[in-house]
Amino acid sequence: MPLWIVCLLAFVWAVAGATPKGPNFIIIMADDLGYGDLGCYGHPSIRTPHLDRMAREGMRFTDFYSSAEVCTPSRAGLLTGRYPIRSGMCGDQPRVLTARAKGGLPREEITLAEALKERGYATACIGKWHLGSKPQHHPKHHGFDYYFGLPYSNDMPLHTNLPPGSTGSLNPRNELFDVPLRRNEDVIETTARQDTLTKRYTEEALRFMRENREHPFFIYLPHTFPHVPLFASAEFRGRSARGLYGDVVEELDWSVGQILEGLRREGLAENTLVVFTSDNGPWLTQKLAGGSAGLLRDGKGSTWEGGMRVPCIAWWPGRINSGQITSALACNLDFFPTCLKLAGAETPRDRVIDGIDLGAVLFGNRGPQRDDFLYYRGAQLFAVRVGVMKAHFQTKPAYGKEEAKKHDPPLLFNLAEDPSERFDVAANHSEALAQIARVVEKHRTTLKPSRSQLDD
Amino acid sequence: MPLWIVCLLAFVWAVAGATPKGPNFIIIMADDLGYGDLGCYGHPSIRTPHLDRMAREGMRFTDFYSSAEVCTPSRAGLLTGRYPIRSGMCGDQPRVLTARAKGGLPREEITLAEALKERGYATACIGKWHLGSKPQHHPKHHGFDYYFGLPYSNDMPLHTNLPPGSTGSLNPRNELFDVPLRRNEDVIETTARQDTLTKRYTEEALRFMRENREHPFFIYLPHTFPHVPLFASAEFRGRSARGLYGDVVEELDWSVGQILEGLRREGLAENTLVVFTSDNGPWLTQKLAGGSAGLLRDGKGSTWEGGMRVPCIAWWPGRINSGQITSALACNLDFFPTCLKLAGAETPRDRVIDGIDLGAVLFGNRGPQRDDFLYYRGAQLFAVRVGVMKAHFQTKPAYGKEEAKKHDPPLLFNLAEDPSERFDVAANHSEALAQIARVVEKHRTTLKPSRSQLDD
Repeated sequence: MPLWIVCLLAFVWAVAGATPKGPNFIIIMADDLGYGDLGCYGHPSIRTPHLDRMAREGMRFTDFYSSAEVCTPSRAGLLTGRYPIRSGMCGDQPRVLTARAKGGLPREEITLAEALKERGYATACIGKWHLGSKPQHHPKHHGFDYYFGLPYSNDMPLHTNLPPGSTGSLNPRNELFDVPLRRNEDVIETTARQDTLTKRYTEEALRFMRENREHPFFIYLPHTFPHVPLFASAEFRGRSARGLYGDVVEELDWSVGQILEGLRREGLAENTLVVFTSDNGPWLTQKLAGGSAGLLRDGKGSTWEGGMRVPCIAWWPGRINSGQITSALACNLDFFPTCLKLAGAETPRDRVIDGIDLGAVLFGNRGPQRDDFLYYRGAQLFAVRVGVMKAHFQTKPAYGKEEAKKHDPPLLFNLAEDPSERFDVAANHSEALAQIARVVEKHRTTLKPSRSQLDD
Repeated sequence: MPLWIVCLLAFVWAVAGATPKGPNFIIIMADDLGYGDLGCYGHPSIRTPHLDRMAREGMRFTDFYSSAEVCTPSRAGLLTGRYPIRSGMCGDQPRVLTARAKGGLPREEITLAEALKERGYATACIGKWHLGSKPQHHPKHHGFDYYFGLPYSNDMPLHTNLPPGSTGSLNPRNELFDVPLRRNEDVIETTARQDTLTKRYTEEALRFMRENREHPFFIYLPHTFPHVPLFASAEFRGRSARGLYGDVVEELDWSVGQILEGLRREGLAENTLVVFTSDNGPWLTQKLAGGSAGLLRDGKGSTWEGGMRVPCIAWWPGRINSGQITSALACNLDFFPTCLKLAGAETPRDRVIDGIDLGAVLFGNRGPQRDDFLYYRGAQLFAVRVGVMKAHFQTKPAYGKEEAKKHDPPLLFNLAEDPSERFDVAANHSEALAQIARVVEKHRTTLKPSRSQLDD
């Protein structure tokens, strides 16, 4: 090879190397999907071959948590890496942002999209936002180049008077829910055609992926379903033995298959971390229109395990070894520092970040592992897990007007031995209670008063 | 090749061909293992890599039932292919054969071992018998060439006065349970060393397999565990995050791994059907020493799903396609006709056989599929499933003195949509109730009065 070619190649190499090209990230989040709702988590009648394969090719978490028991705070936690109490994105009444709420994720919060955008990432939010529906809270103000989706939950129409109980209906009519579909700042459907949402989110994500295939990208894909009202496309409707709820989950499973296949087709699989999870547990009061927490106690809205322990699967061919099941404690706060580290970005130092880099779990790196997890219900700390021991300071039914029941001493469960939280072992584990008390005390010193955005 | 060698080979071939060599069968049955206790059925803290792999390489059933809600009748059902009501091997008080009981499986019953032995199979029962402990009920009278194991449950000592509650203890002492270990007709340990039972059963099975590698064989391997008292070997004790129950299940998982590896090593894998299942649901009243039914309702002793729907994995490299999950309705009665068909044997025609050949499910053959399943509690029919619909005519807590509650109309659940049996849909499904009533009526016409062997 002539010397000048060698020199040219070396120059090109150096220039390319100077532009850091981190891996791509795709975070797929289902809405109200329960711990027990996937084949690989043991559901008997919902078929999820694509997610099962994703788990076989990657890592399946058994002890992964959403950062809150309901939608809005869980999403705030995921995008900021901070317990939602820090951003004011949680509250006791209401517990999520309503359709007319003026509040939203404060501008001073730094989202994962914002931090990655600074590193040159192309960023998209495709799906349900639910972090503020007013213009000042638009995803574009939080680091997203592109947005396609609903501003909040699909059961939050602005104008329609819904017949009682209709949100949980297994035969919902689209026109009853005038939830707008937006593309960037435009409302492209005043009443979103919900039966094709999963399909359209998938197409949007695939398009964004293709358009940015030469470029690092971050796709945040928070699906609208299986939150009620349940809509599946014509192809999926009537397909699952589990009924409409199963149809909807099986369509999400198809969507995941499309995304992974798209990555393989574009040659991006080996350079993309994909995670799949849920924003909170199953909405049990929706009966057949809600999911299952499997062997876990209770569901969405509660700080029992069924409310916050959710499926999580991580996939990155060549980087995450296939076929792993991990019981490492982890939660959706951890995506923030994990992705920033992989992108070569600094984690913000001017604020408390509650997330932990998951590198040690995902790649077997050295590094810290998560020791504890805090279960907030709205703005109140209800329970804390340290190692496998979980203390409940308060418990309260997921929904309804019943007052919280305080526990002193706290209820204590060994979640590894007793995942269904049946046997209180507080009497024999004073040292665990003391350790949990220290974690709470330390956490409290880091809290600053914040106004709830949800009251607004 | 000289002509005489060709002739000799042809002769040997013809002779060999004249001796039908069916496939080998290994039926592994855990004791009191729940629907939710394996990794591939969704347990978060019990690790079962060998059973998970067996499922990946074979077929996992989501809707598989034991033929009874407790030990003795379930085993009678498995070995005879007949609901235990037909052989008198069920009863209401007691519900299983006690250690001192004189009764046992009647000689006129034809077991799978007996029928296979007639076809030239070598047969072994390695593990817990529990179909009669008196000499006249010995496995050798039911077609087993070889027997190694306990005559009944491991919590049924003959002489010791147990401290109250000790059966469920998580720290059982071996000497408290003077359950004999037998090899053929000899008692080789008057108080079985239970902590090495799983290991020794495994070794016995591997030895039998090796010794009969040139010969079709049937190994019935009904493990003693995870029935309480729980014992794991030194290698497994303290290994599972789930505690001793997890240690015991993980040792069973190891055992399955050894069996499959043994088959591969001996070159027998492609000629052996292996199934793994449980005799009934988890013994929930044993608390941490009992298992989990996952999302299913209730456990051992009840006719809710958790009492009788159990894990089942079928494996036969080259015959059963890998990675299949089936929701086909099946039960342990079905092994009898399935194995006989594969062995080229006739199913007895002089009696009712309730089992169905599973060939259509396992191999995708044409053939009948199971349409219904009857849930007996002792000698009484409590519930019936037809398709995905299950009617409860009576319900009763798994244990305790509470009377059965009769339901007229029956409670009705759609098990595919509602596997946890939460929502009675009887009001809207009179046709399903009528269909179920016809199945019951037809079943009743086939019943002949039989004396319970359990009262004796």
